[in-house]
Amino acid sequence: MKKLINSPDHVLADALVGVELAHPELKVDHTNRIIYRGEPTKPGKVALISGGGSGHEPLHGGFVGFGMLDAACAGEVFTSPTPDQMQEATKVADSGAGVLHIVKNYTGDVMNFEMAAEMAEAETGVRVESVVTNDDVAVEDSTWTAGRRGVGVTVLLEKIVGAAAEEGRDLAAVASLARTVNAQGRSMGMALTSCTVPSAGKPTFELPDDMMEMGVGIHGEPGRHRVPLAPAADIAQQLVEPILHDLDFSGAPTIVMLNGMGGTPLIELYLMYGEVAKILQKSGIQVARSLVGNYITSLDMAGCSVTVLRADDELLRLWDAPVNTAGLRWGV
Amino acid sequence: MKKLINSPDHVLADALVGVELAHPELKVDHTNRIIYRGEPTKPGKVALISGGGSGHEPLHGGFVGFGMLDAACAGEVFTSPTPDQMQEATKVADSGAGVLHIVKNYTGDVMNFEMAAEMAEAETGVRVESVVTNDDVAVEDSTWTAGRRGVGVTVLLEKIVGAAAEEGRDLAAVASLARTVNAQGRSMGMALTSCTVPSAGKPTFELPDDMMEMGVGIHGEPGRHRVPLAPAADIAQQLVEPILHDLDFSGAPTIVMLNGMGGTPLIELYLMYGEVAKILQKSGIQVARSLVGNYITSLDMAGCSVTVLRADDELLRLWDAPVNTAGLRWGV
Repeated sequence: MKKLINSPDHVLADALVGVELAHPELKVDHTNRIIYRGEPTKPGKVALISGGGSGHEPLHGGFVGFGMLDAACAGEVFTSPTPDQMQEATKVADSGAGVLHIVKNYTGDVMNFEMAAEMAEAETGVRVESVVTNDDVAVEDSTWTAGRRGVGVTVLLEKIVGAAAEEGRDLAAVASLARTVNAQGRSMGMALTSCTVPSAGKPTFELPDDMMEMGVGIHGEPGRHRVPLAPAADIAQQLVEPILHDLDFSGAPTIVMLNGMGGTPLIELYLMYGEVAKILQKSGIQVARSLVGNYITSLDMAGCSVTVLRADDELLRLWDAPVNTAGLRWGV
Repeated sequence: MKKLINSPDHVLADALVGVELAHPELKVDHTNRIIYRGEPTKPGKVALISGGGSGHEPLHGGFVGFGMLDAACAGEVFTSPTPDQMQEATKVADSGAGVLHIVKNYTGDVMNFEMAAEMAEAETGVRVESVVTNDDVAVEDSTWTAGRRGVGVTVLLEKIVGAAAEEGRDLAAVASLARTVNAQGRSMGMALTSCTVPSAGKPTFELPDDMMEMGVGIHGEPGRHRVPLAPAADIAQQLVEPILHDLDFSGAPTIVMLNGMGGTPLIELYLMYGEVAKILQKSGIQVARSLVGNYITSLDMAGCSVTVLRADDELLRLWDAPVNTAGLRWGV
């Protein structure tokens, strides 16, 4: 295993030191492994909290800041944060207007966020709503998931709903918008190589030199099938087809993300975006906005995922609204 | 070789299609492989042009836009663009106020940009100044370089000098500032793994599982020495020491970039930044600004580089000025 780490046991703790030193605009609670905004949530603003296992950076800590999250809880690599962490983040971020938990659909995350919400409500009376993202069309159940896995739409949701929260919408409205965004987004990913979890010290799965995994999960969970390596245009087709088969994207503007898994260079991601965009054009899908880069990663996995979100003028307006985070920044 | 490409011969051409589709604010000249701003350079503004072999994305095409470059010429992977491309970019970007060529110190790039400047001056009378970056402290001469290689400082230079050009400084002032920034910046990189050039189909160099290359170049050129894998803190020491040995950074604010080589996930880059920042603190160096991420990459190489720039209030002001590019964006 070749990694820029001190020890497999200290990856998260050491990385949080770097985050704190690199981002004076953020605060880091090293005990509870929470990244939160330097300024308290302004009164009346619903707080947005997310979190999950580490190894998917910039998700979630890189999306803390104006226009997106108020706080993010970091678990160990590919391991859910604990309810205690989430409860603490909920308390820290709440301004009195309530808190939205944004939870990717993995059993540990869902259970722990539920417990945290109950504990926080019982202890301090904070109002909590939750949205569970489950946009991955690849498989119905997975290694750590009942139902579909939550993947790329989480990024788009945090951006869009973050903008709505900044505008002062109340908790019910923010939660409702979050569920709408999740319902209208679909993703599919693929891997050329496995990732390697530091504590495991070896690749999560073995993939022959001439094969790729279609529909892979962001923790290296198995996808739909292993198929021979193919040209980018064919890969794009294999990613886009299941997405378009699963939801009707016609007659509406869409937001499209071509996301890298962490180990794939940007030149390949742009190349893949070109192939995806051409297929969408041919299918009559209108791409109104796009995002190309590493946003929800799987450590050092080589591969990519496609997310398509059915939008409308209002979602596009919220997408375009100012955002100021380490991972996404515009308009400020 | 596992890559998201259609064919080793079409990587650049296909990636430029993706860039054009993802960035309606940019224009792409597919014949000359130039990425340039959608709006012509405003009268009186000096134009900034850079370029070089592809495979270092977001450098340079990702830095075209307000506050940075006016145009970027893309060569094939790790291959200099031709004088024709650079001449065409020079003509397209010039508003009459002259053009600054920002050239990384590699023999092909230097020679071709020189020819392009002469051709452009002879044909259209455009005034061209050039700055050659040579900030890599690792080795004196290298595979394709007489003198030091140009690496990370190129990113910081394009940002700072880009801001100065937007303010309307004349060509001599912009070129002088560029030379100052280059003279005040130093970098050093390392690799855990080789990169693989698509047309070669195999790793550029072989590196045993328990070794790393200290001082590697961004094309996989040999560094100072191969040493056993070490904890991140030791690697940081091995990167920072030669930089501090080479230039006096005391008594001034600095801008520090922790750059990923393309195949290293963000969690490791933040971890490395923490180690680098702690060493700089202990050495009495004041870090005023920082940048962590993939900015000047080497295809899928795993590894990182450190760049330290000696700044002052004026350079910090220009650093903080608005920038609006795919690869760097703030204040707009």
